[in-house]
Amino acid sequence: MKNCNGTLIFESKPRISSFASVAGKKESEGPLHKAFDMTEPDPRFGQKTFEQAESRMMRLTIEKAMEKRGVTDKDIDIALCGDLLNQCVASGFAVRGLSTPYAGIYGACSTMALGLILSSIAVESGAARRAVCAASSHFCTAERQYRTPLEYGAQRTPTAQRTVTGCGACIIEPKSSTGFGSASYPNSDPPYIDSARIGIVTDYAVSDQSNMGAAMAPAAADTIYRYLSSTGTKARDYDAIFTGDLGVVGSRLLYDLLAERNIDIEKLHRDCGMMIYGREQDVHAGGSGCGCCASVLCSHILNALQIKAYRNILFIATGAMLSPTTVMQNETIPSIAHLVNIRVE
Amino acid sequence: MKNCNGTLIFESKPRISSFASVAGKKESEGPLHKAFDMTEPDPRFGQKTFEQAESRMMRLTIEKAMEKRGVTDKDIDIALCGDLLNQCVASGFAVRGLSTPYAGIYGACSTMALGLILSSIAVESGAARRAVCAASSHFCTAERQYRTPLEYGAQRTPTAQRTVTGCGACIIEPKSSTGFGSASYPNSDPPYIDSARIGIVTDYAVSDQSNMGAAMAPAAADTIYRYLSSTGTKARDYDAIFTGDLGVVGSRLLYDLLAERNIDIEKLHRDCGMMIYGREQDVHAGGSGCGCCASVLCSHILNALQIKAYRNILFIATGAMLSPTTVMQNETIPSIAHLVNIRVE
Repeated sequence: MKNCNGTLIFESKPRISSFASVAGKKESEGPLHKAFDMTEPDPRFGQKTFEQAESRMMRLTIEKAMEKRGVTDKDIDIALCGDLLNQCVASGFAVRGLSTPYAGIYGACSTMALGLILSSIAVESGAARRAVCAASSHFCTAERQYRTPLEYGAQRTPTAQRTVTGCGACIIEPKSSTGFGSASYPNSDPPYIDSARIGIVTDYAVSDQSNMGAAMAPAAADTIYRYLSSTGTKARDYDAIFTGDLGVVGSRLLYDLLAERNIDIEKLHRDCGMMIYGREQDVHAGGSGCGCCASVLCSHILNALQIKAYRNILFIATGAMLSPTTVMQNETIPSIAHLVNIRVE
Repeated sequence: MKNCNGTLIFESKPRISSFASVAGKKESEGPLHKAFDMTEPDPRFGQKTFEQAESRMMRLTIEKAMEKRGVTDKDIDIALCGDLLNQCVASGFAVRGLSTPYAGIYGACSTMALGLILSSIAVESGAARRAVCAASSHFCTAERQYRTPLEYGAQRTPTAQRTVTGCGACIIEPKSSTGFGSASYPNSDPPYIDSARIGIVTDYAVSDQSNMGAAMAPAAADTIYRYLSSTGTKARDYDAIFTGDLGVVGSRLLYDLLAERNIDIEKLHRDCGMMIYGREQDVHAGGSGCGCCASVLCSHILNALQIKAYRNILFIATGAMLSPTTVMQNETIPSIAHLVNIRVE
């Protein structure tokens, strides 16, 4: 593979050979409800704690992706998983008992794109014949950890986003793998990752943790600008540009920041944080959390690629690299955005 | 590269072209005090908070490694960094302002080995012409986060390990890179990574967070056994076997677990957690934290390879995938161990 000014060009075109998504009750009431592989009305997923529930959800998602591909954990050489919980315990506990080597990753809400990129590098290099990546978040674990216990019934500001209860998982393997007629793609070849870009941490000195879209928009603009420049392409060369999860506020800022560089993505752009809930669901500025763009990618977006509603898209996942401790210490919010170019033939 | 039953064989033999370590006051009073590039008596590293201090320490370490190699952040295509803080903020803030693309990783105390492996994969694949990996921990941030505020003056049990204030960073690049006569290796070729193994999460149902050596020993035993089996080598084929950070209790358990499989490493084995402090320093079972084996690797161990005191070693970093929340929820402690085989010609 090649690294052209920071953009990774995959020569082997790693395939997303399978994908799966699992989501919670609120998400099952939204516009994407039919696209998820499974939704679960019980926020505890049958477990004792919300943290166990999130791990269980990730495990179910990984198992569903393997099942749709007709493989087991023994057939996968590396699992790259991440989540928002302290010490990434949702992921660490989710893979317990699997015989797949595990690499923990952390990119806040950008984790799914980071997982796709590192999985593709592992597959392209020959380190893995098959990789799985997954990212999850859970409304109840996130509220407890980042904000206040649910029982307080705290009000949220209009710029705030709601943490999605959801998980997405993808299996990545080389084009040369056989038997791609998996349940994920009954009628077509799977999409492939053509190129990607790992983001640079940016900081525009936003310090309001209730307005993370604003903190993350500059990171998305930076990565998109660098990607288009390095590949010599324009926004209109793509069928759609998905971000996750800027929400209403961050999306508007992204348009403004790109306009300064004469880039217009507005007509092509959709934000996963605004796709997962309906306006009537009262979620303020939209959804967020690792599981938001992960579950939207592994439902609506990959379904659309499968039926060739799109053939060439950009998926840009953004992350705010804060913690409750840094917020209390009046730090600003460093942010990052990783980009993946996904295509079908 | 090849994946032989889970062991990664690097064909390009990625070089550790530079390394650096920075440590705190307690560590500067230990047996490795002369081996660190820098020690800092101020636990705040001139910053306002301990968390900022840990970020500052990681940034200093990365900058020192770059300086010793004669490169800048613009010359490095990916930074793979991790730490123990919630949402990995030590790393996220450490790379803010660098123009290097950043991938956050999490492996608890195994992070340095995970960084070495993923950096090597990135370099071998061509994704990066040069990668940097780093891992840090800080006694004061860890005590506040995992246990009690320092001001409480809490007693620790004899099996407990002390979190090291330290950081290690390595720059990885292909053998074909030129100008290896860097300050890290004034007189010799740099060591290379010959093979490696990403660990599988194990859980032997240990739930005592004051005895993490016991929780992690089975993971180390599992990874060592699988590595030796897959490569057809024996422990005596290596000049030394370093683990990080099992401490006194975990090391003894590791010998017992390997003895069940007729593997004897005792005479070759040294544990980073037992190397970093002297017996007289009253640290109970030894050191721990991402920064423990990272700083020992990037001082004593790589120095010893440089003077060819060793030519072929195994570096096995172990991690306990718990969080304070999972401990309170009476969960057991899943653990992992990643292995790197480092050689000099």
